[in-house]
Amino acid sequence: MILAIDVGGTKMAAGLVAPDGTVAESRRAATPQGADAETLWRVLAGLVSPLASAAEGVGVGCGGPLTWPAGEVSPLNIPGWRGFPLRARLAALFPSVPVRLHNDAVCLAVAEHWRGAGQGSGDMLGMVVSTGVGGGLILGGRLLHGRTGNAGHIGHVVVDAAGGPRCGCGGHGCLEAVARGPALVAWALEQGWEPGAVAGRAAARGAVARDVAMAGPVVPCGVGGGVAGGGAALNGAYAEDRVVTARQLAADARAGDPVASRAMRRAGRALGVAIASATHLCDLDVITIGGGLSQAGEPLFGPLEEALREHARMGFARRVKVLPAALGQEAGLIGAAALLLAGDTYWPARDA
Amino acid sequence: MILAIDVGGTKMAAGLVAPDGTVAESRRAATPQGADAETLWRVLAGLVSPLASAAEGVGVGCGGPLTWPAGEVSPLNIPGWRGFPLRARLAALFPSVPVRLHNDAVCLAVAEHWRGAGQGSGDMLGMVVSTGVGGGLILGGRLLHGRTGNAGHIGHVVVDAAGGPRCGCGGHGCLEAVARGPALVAWALEQGWEPGAVAGRAAARGAVARDVAMAGPVVPCGVGGGVAGGGAALNGAYAEDRVVTARQLAADARAGDPVASRAMRRAGRALGVAIASATHLCDLDVITIGGGLSQAGEPLFGPLEEALREHARMGFARRVKVLPAALGQEAGLIGAAALLLAGDTYWPARDA
Repeated sequence: MILAIDVGGTKMAAGLVAPDGTVAESRRAATPQGADAETLWRVLAGLVSPLASAAEGVGVGCGGPLTWPAGEVSPLNIPGWRGFPLRARLAALFPSVPVRLHNDAVCLAVAEHWRGAGQGSGDMLGMVVSTGVGGGLILGGRLLHGRTGNAGHIGHVVVDAAGGPRCGCGGHGCLEAVARGPALVAWALEQGWEPGAVAGRAAARGAVARDVAMAGPVVPCGVGGGVAGGGAALNGAYAEDRVVTARQLAADARAGDPVASRAMRRAGRALGVAIASATHLCDLDVITIGGGLSQAGEPLFGPLEEALREHARMGFARRVKVLPAALGQEAGLIGAAALLLAGDTYWPARDA
Repeated sequence: MILAIDVGGTKMAAGLVAPDGTVAESRRAATPQGADAETLWRVLAGLVSPLASAAEGVGVGCGGPLTWPAGEVSPLNIPGWRGFPLRARLAALFPSVPVRLHNDAVCLAVAEHWRGAGQGSGDMLGMVVSTGVGGGLILGGRLLHGRTGNAGHIGHVVVDAAGGPRCGCGGHGCLEAVARGPALVAWALEQGWEPGAVAGRAAARGAVARDVAMAGPVVPCGVGGGVAGGGAALNGAYAEDRVVTARQLAADARAGDPVASRAMRRAGRALGVAIASATHLCDLDVITIGGGLSQAGEPLFGPLEEALREHARMGFARRVKVLPAALGQEAGLIGAAALLLAGDTYWPARDA
């Protein structure tokens, strides 16, 4: 069994994953907010402890930025860890088995390729669209790591160089700056969206969830991108005790709210443009899309397909298919385990 | 010695390339215009014939679109070849040695990685900016072929989704549609550029070269892209007997012509944006830029660097370097030979 670990800003998960990718057992713990490095480490160590004896290897997915393959992590939404040597600490805890670590968005892409919607694809981009926009690239049937472990940063492909919003990465016009959940919500509110109005749920303003963005894995996108400013974007546009979510926005779009529909259309088209660019550059055949926003359905995927087909016109690019991610909450654990369970498909042959 | 062949719309070249990449001997012939498939083939066969006895392998770069690895070619600017089985015909002519073929833009990238400006880079995009905009990707130290042989199509990364010009590929807002030589010239003329006016060369209008675009390798960009419409773009904006070139445009920009400078700036920024996107997606460390327009100097490269640094802000992306291509006219031959001379670096280990 592989001990798989998924470290995020709101929760940590650990599980035992069988060689076929089945999650045999899993545990979760809230990520302590505002905790220092050692407190965070103790929570994680406590979480994995009951599973440790069965571990023949340890695979970890963690929010970025991080160094790879060294595995020093500085997750944007875990301020207590800055340059924390997570891979080395786990290696010390599990001295007799291999420990491997990658960006959590990369692990989700790996999971979809190994056991999800991308099975059998030779050239795939696995995306996650949620609080951030991230991804991982499988090329020629293998994970592309990149020399610094940062390949797959689809969230920072530029989709609107002229007029695009500023991005958490310091640039502007990135896909993530346009299409991440909090950006969509902020944009819609600016345009006069009244959450729940179309559905006749007048009380919706007070009733929506407190959590930022949508449910589903919260995936900051690697180095310097992602989540930073998410709360700010929301809070700046809407009273703090009435935080609204991209889930609400998607529901309103499906119910016919014109502003919510335009917001989803804006994100969908941006995704389609970025996917066309990635397809041309990397000769891709499959794109999988997971993360909370991927559950938005037609209001997002319709405009996405429209823009993709407008831009991907050459013969080789027309074959690309966009598929919803097939794995659910456990995808992060499955992908982390696959770093060890799939030979050198998702980890360099010369062990890094 | 490897027999290297470089097939373009205006000329065909063949040479003998030594294992160290030195071109020992080379020959050129004009590509017969308007010729049928067999006439074209006879010219090529005649060109290589004097070099044939020394050939221990045959490497070919050819304008796209083409099928890969089958090597059936339909170069945009060689209308007589449509689905012409160039690799098979050469294999029949050289039955005892391996014959390998790739897109000419890919061969130029390979050449720069093997013996040019990109030597030692693990993750490189080799670009050519000329009549078309094309490229090839070296990732993890090896050429990325893509399943259909079309990886590296940087010319069709979208840089202006909202308002970009239509592209020969059928899309719009592609880098190539903005930054290829003829598009630049057409744009400048529309904006009131008077070729040579700033330099005081009043006679320049009648004196400039007839050939489209700039000197240097004419590289259509793979499937469906590239050159188509180049003449049309020029001719629509300027009388046919007064065709002006991007070389002239670059000279005028260097001489301080404000419209020419804006045209170069437009192309340079588009290149910078596309390079930032590619860097984020593929974790690149080096970009090489060849082709005629790459000789435009500061008016192109200044705005390119400016836009790149604006958009590539994350730590890993800041390391990317943009370098002028180091090899000259023989780059195409050197790259074609490298398909055979560099082990499986530029050709699949399981021979395709």
